[in-house]
Amino acid sequence: MSQTKGQSSIQFAEAPYIIESSSIVGQKEGEGPLGKLFDSVEQDPMLQKKTWEEAESELQRKAVQKAIDKSNLTQQDLRYLFAGDLLGQSIASSFGLMQFQIPLFGLYGACSTAGESLCVAAMTVAAGYADNAVAVTSSHFASAEKQFRYPLEYANQRPLSANWTVTGSGAFILGTKRSKARITGITPGKIVDYGIKDSFNMGAAMAPAACDTIYQNFMDFNRSDKDYDKIITGDLGLIGSKILIDLLKEKGFDISQIHMDCGVEIYDGDNQDTHAGGSGCGCSAVTLSAYILPKIHKGEWKKILFLPTGALLSTVSFNEGQSVPGIAHGVVIEHC
Amino acid sequence: MSQTKGQSSIQFAEAPYIIESSSIVGQKEGEGPLGKLFDSVEQDPMLQKKTWEEAESELQRKAVQKAIDKSNLTQQDLRYLFAGDLLGQSIASSFGLMQFQIPLFGLYGACSTAGESLCVAAMTVAAGYADNAVAVTSSHFASAEKQFRYPLEYANQRPLSANWTVTGSGAFILGTKRSKARITGITPGKIVDYGIKDSFNMGAAMAPAACDTIYQNFMDFNRSDKDYDKIITGDLGLIGSKILIDLLKEKGFDISQIHMDCGVEIYDGDNQDTHAGGSGCGCSAVTLSAYILPKIHKGEWKKILFLPTGALLSTVSFNEGQSVPGIAHGVVIEHC
Repeated sequence: MSQTKGQSSIQFAEAPYIIESSSIVGQKEGEGPLGKLFDSVEQDPMLQKKTWEEAESELQRKAVQKAIDKSNLTQQDLRYLFAGDLLGQSIASSFGLMQFQIPLFGLYGACSTAGESLCVAAMTVAAGYADNAVAVTSSHFASAEKQFRYPLEYANQRPLSANWTVTGSGAFILGTKRSKARITGITPGKIVDYGIKDSFNMGAAMAPAACDTIYQNFMDFNRSDKDYDKIITGDLGLIGSKILIDLLKEKGFDISQIHMDCGVEIYDGDNQDTHAGGSGCGCSAVTLSAYILPKIHKGEWKKILFLPTGALLSTVSFNEGQSVPGIAHGVVIEHC
Repeated sequence: MSQTKGQSSIQFAEAPYIIESSSIVGQKEGEGPLGKLFDSVEQDPMLQKKTWEEAESELQRKAVQKAIDKSNLTQQDLRYLFAGDLLGQSIASSFGLMQFQIPLFGLYGACSTAGESLCVAAMTVAAGYADNAVAVTSSHFASAEKQFRYPLEYANQRPLSANWTVTGSGAFILGTKRSKARITGITPGKIVDYGIKDSFNMGAAMAPAACDTIYQNFMDFNRSDKDYDKIITGDLGLIGSKILIDLLKEKGFDISQIHMDCGVEIYDGDNQDTHAGGSGCGCSAVTLSAYILPKIHKGEWKKILFLPTGALLSTVSFNEGQSVPGIAHGVVIEHC
């Protein structure tokens, strides 16, 4: 049976539930405005491991284990893992999830992977391919700086437009068992490239992609800003959020009253020196788990559009003078 | 309706068809045993671009365009793209597929991505989420050497156990319209790590994962080596293929008479100096399109298990002393 909706979206005939979730973060995130909401705040940025990459793997392992522990499920109940991170060849996921011995679909959409993994896990459960599946993503400030910018030891200065990569991992168990939140539809995004070449201004690079996916979601589902209690982007930060609101105004929609950005929420920009805000696959994932889902469970927010955003660059593409294209995957989450 | 099969597999209630496919390769692949079968042999390794990475992006763009041209479909008929490559942050896919303006799911499973992309595209079409979806993967000898080993200018010597990364891209349009080949089931793989640390012997690192997925496929579908005309691995090469056959014998199955490896088929090892054989996301994809699918269309092979294999390493994980874990995703393709 066709479950397509409009040009790009999917409306699930049997919407999968978000059965349980978890959030593991680092010290800085623990000191931020959402600090008390996370499942676990790791005081050691190395997580007792030898390298930053192993530390990030450990974040993913802990997030999945925590989600299992919080649910009434066992490891054997989880049929597939959908996972990704920002590191080259996704090694945080591979080395972090290996021990679970669950079939793995590796995903890459930069910071939008948090949305992509929820999309594919939801598609899998809704189709009857699994009773339960896990979506998990991570990022780590130090492994990301090492990968994309400079080693921490270099102590470089950061422009005010720069984002701060969140140290954290969020895991979500999707399944057919009833809970208080379900994914009723998705709008997978396409790549949007406005030709921005400044990798220290990723909010500006990703805002057009967020605009494109939100607009597509409105068209496909015949909705507008009036139909959502919140539209929550991943990590546009202060600058990207302003651009997004302006771009959508040009298309006739004013989301300024209902828009929220995980990258803005997770830190106290005035006191934590995080400049434009948080970013990374972990940013939107831990914010969804710790802050957004509880509000949906309570019915405080009945219907939201959750929209992690990604900047599709690598150091190689950047050094070769390529632009920074963006992508955003939309996930409609409803109270039930 | 549940479509799960056994512990890890999916049996599609409405199996999607492989409507069309394409194969674009480089000069060396064009000079190999399958040379005359490919859709296009590019004589310029740069594909008229400025960098190796842009050249690989161009391979993907050409592969998708060729698959569209060969089908009776238009770009607008293709609802989703499922794509991946070997480069950090999957830039070959992002920059190669941007212009199609089709929603993109980025995937990463090293060289197993060719199988992973077919799995997720098949899951999507079979569930009624799309009438048509595209799976596409690529690799390029020069971008891979630069990424994983040494710049070509360094002219390093290669051990005999090393694989040769295939320059090529294969694209597959899956859909609901009847054709002569369909994907009837899949067995997504889990990560298997035997602790091998030699990145110049990836066949040995991936063989245990291939063994695990084949065995799981046999158990889940209650099949054996007798049920397949061919079991075709992605890029184990000569050394990995031998290990796979030995490992499966230990589990009671002899696949020696029906096993084939795309990495072994694509080059003439005696005359092309390719050592253990071909590898890369492009290797199994172009071999499937140019060599395997025509035999399925003719009914020469009625049922095969196609099993691209991936080595989940990065230069960072390798330099930090980590092992090279493997993964293999199984795709059952049947004549119809």
